[in-house]
Amino acid sequence: MSVDRIARLRELLEEPLLVTSSVNVRYLTAFDSSNAALLVEPERACLYTDFRYIDRAREVEGVQAVETRRGLISWLSQKLSGRIGFEAHVLPYAFVEVLREADIEVVPRSGLVEQLRAVKDASELDALRRACAITDRVFERLVTEVPFVGRRERDVAWEITRLFHEEGADGLAFESIVGSGPTGSGPHAHAGDRVIQAGELVVIDTGCLVDGYSSDYTRTFSTGPLDGEQLEAYDVVLAAQQAGLDAIRAGVTGLDADAAARRVIDDSPFEGRFGHGLGHGLGLDVHEAPRLSTESVDTLEPGNVVTVEPGIYVSGRFGVRIEDDVFVTEDGIENPVRFRKDLVEVR
Amino acid sequence: MSVDRIARLRELLEEPLLVTSSVNVRYLTAFDSSNAALLVEPERACLYTDFRYIDRAREVEGVQAVETRRGLISWLSQKLSGRIGFEAHVLPYAFVEVLREADIEVVPRSGLVEQLRAVKDASELDALRRACAITDRVFERLVTEVPFVGRRERDVAWEITRLFHEEGADGLAFESIVGSGPTGSGPHAHAGDRVIQAGELVVIDTGCLVDGYSSDYTRTFSTGPLDGEQLEAYDVVLAAQQAGLDAIRAGVTGLDADAAARRVIDDSPFEGRFGHGLGHGLGLDVHEAPRLSTESVDTLEPGNVVTVEPGIYVSGRFGVRIEDDVFVTEDGIENPVRFRKDLVEVR
Repeated sequence: MSVDRIARLRELLEEPLLVTSSVNVRYLTAFDSSNAALLVEPERACLYTDFRYIDRAREVEGVQAVETRRGLISWLSQKLSGRIGFEAHVLPYAFVEVLREADIEVVPRSGLVEQLRAVKDASELDALRRACAITDRVFERLVTEVPFVGRRERDVAWEITRLFHEEGADGLAFESIVGSGPTGSGPHAHAGDRVIQAGELVVIDTGCLVDGYSSDYTRTFSTGPLDGEQLEAYDVVLAAQQAGLDAIRAGVTGLDADAAARRVIDDSPFEGRFGHGLGHGLGLDVHEAPRLSTESVDTLEPGNVVTVEPGIYVSGRFGVRIEDDVFVTEDGIENPVRFRKDLVEVR
Repeated sequence: MSVDRIARLRELLEEPLLVTSSVNVRYLTAFDSSNAALLVEPERACLYTDFRYIDRAREVEGVQAVETRRGLISWLSQKLSGRIGFEAHVLPYAFVEVLREADIEVVPRSGLVEQLRAVKDASELDALRRACAITDRVFERLVTEVPFVGRRERDVAWEITRLFHEEGADGLAFESIVGSGPTGSGPHAHAGDRVIQAGELVVIDTGCLVDGYSSDYTRTFSTGPLDGEQLEAYDVVLAAQQAGLDAIRAGVTGLDADAAARRVIDDSPFEGRFGHGLGHGLGLDVHEAPRLSTESVDTLEPGNVVTVEPGIYVSGRFGVRIEDDVFVTEDGIENPVRFRKDLVEVR
């Protein structure tokens, strides 16, 4: 696997590339470390890391493992020479200067490994399917087993953590969002001390890790009878999400997919209340290429995996968001998310 | 608090500084977001963030909150002008180019906010003390309540997660290390599928978050009778840790503190088997300034908080590490860690 991915990267290179993003290093080598770099040259690939990780680095096939000092870039600046590409969207400016001052001819490159990562292979899709299957079971158990009303948002978040563990996830993909009532009107509000009341909306945004790959679901539940505005917002988001799913296929731009869902919200009384993009790529990172948004420059292709997550946010009152993770295929999409999308009442 | 920290930062500035490290933004404003920047000018401070976080940004006192597009740096490049410092050790090269191409006169600066963060104030020390008190209780319960032998490392890691939750932590500071037998010889090996055996060493490295601040403890337990080499390694690490604690006080360099502990190991049969630094600063990041290592350029001062964590690693066989978190005071250290350091046998 590693050898194959490195070979595909080589085809994109005009000069050796120094990969310093730890996620990109992991993608190319399956080596997971907070302090590593991979130099991909035409005939070989060198994996650099420090004492703490070197034993595991030596087990990686198809690369030469080299032990460095803890200050990896400064160590490399003394060893490398010639013309070398670097990940300009990742490497901090000061490290580039260290390489330059050592007379290395550095060439800024951006997004080369991310371009490969955007198109998932069978083993990656398999990991994502397993993450989704676990997440489906967690949501089923969440709405049947877990009490909401009268408990703090953070208590419900803990139950989600526990359920993911019990269902076999490697861990959480990110800190769970439990946004009850007004908390839900901040799309990225974390689970806090607010006590969940009866008769309000609760946005749950969570996901898990399986073999490094993330699921990322959102569902919005009710805790009892809602007013007409809340019910309408739910229906509009549900319709917008379906419009987004219907629009997604190979060849469609991230801009157009976003517009398809956004139109539904902007044609409703909630015009302008969908303040973020429709979705993002999902893989070793929770947010990666391609993007579906009003700022997107991407065009979808088979093998892309994206979230589809429109929302409506009424400041200080409530939020609604519904999110699936879908795979772009040769002739449409595969949606591995099974958990229901009608409005579920929790207790 | 925020206003005071921003004022202290201003004293270090020769031009306005664009703070883009999310941890530094949090330190200066208490605003926690994955997409934010703070421009500190002589007379005002602007907090930039996108739609998802803007409501919370408007609640921050002493700053002007400004809503940006999701692509924050590219948006800023159209709004800013003149001479502006940036965090060169953080901001990726490509973003610096975006600012430069917009005719902003960018000035690379490194570590200015980190320099402030290295000296903790009373509220920070209080959060760290509370994180340590919780961690003490978790270690007490771990050795009395949790079975080790016959269980996978990852099962013990989950018990630690559960105990931190029960004891009131906001979450884990980092993924727990549970290194049994040979796993422990990799200083950063994560908890995996290995089943813990009787009669071996188990390295537990974990910590929790309280109000954003991290504790970071390591203890090494036995699961039954050990051989003489393992027992000797334990005693040497314990003596080295004490030597490190004895050496730490204001005015001592990170180099000398490291050397004090390293000498004990290098004078033993385990010479050369302490492959990492003695410790690191601890605060909003689990690894921050100052550093105690053979590469350190720091000198300790009152208010620094550092880990003291020597170890011995015998490749493929076992590891031993003992770690406390200590506060550098005017006249020595305060060690808030209460959990015992003699060799404890777990079952």
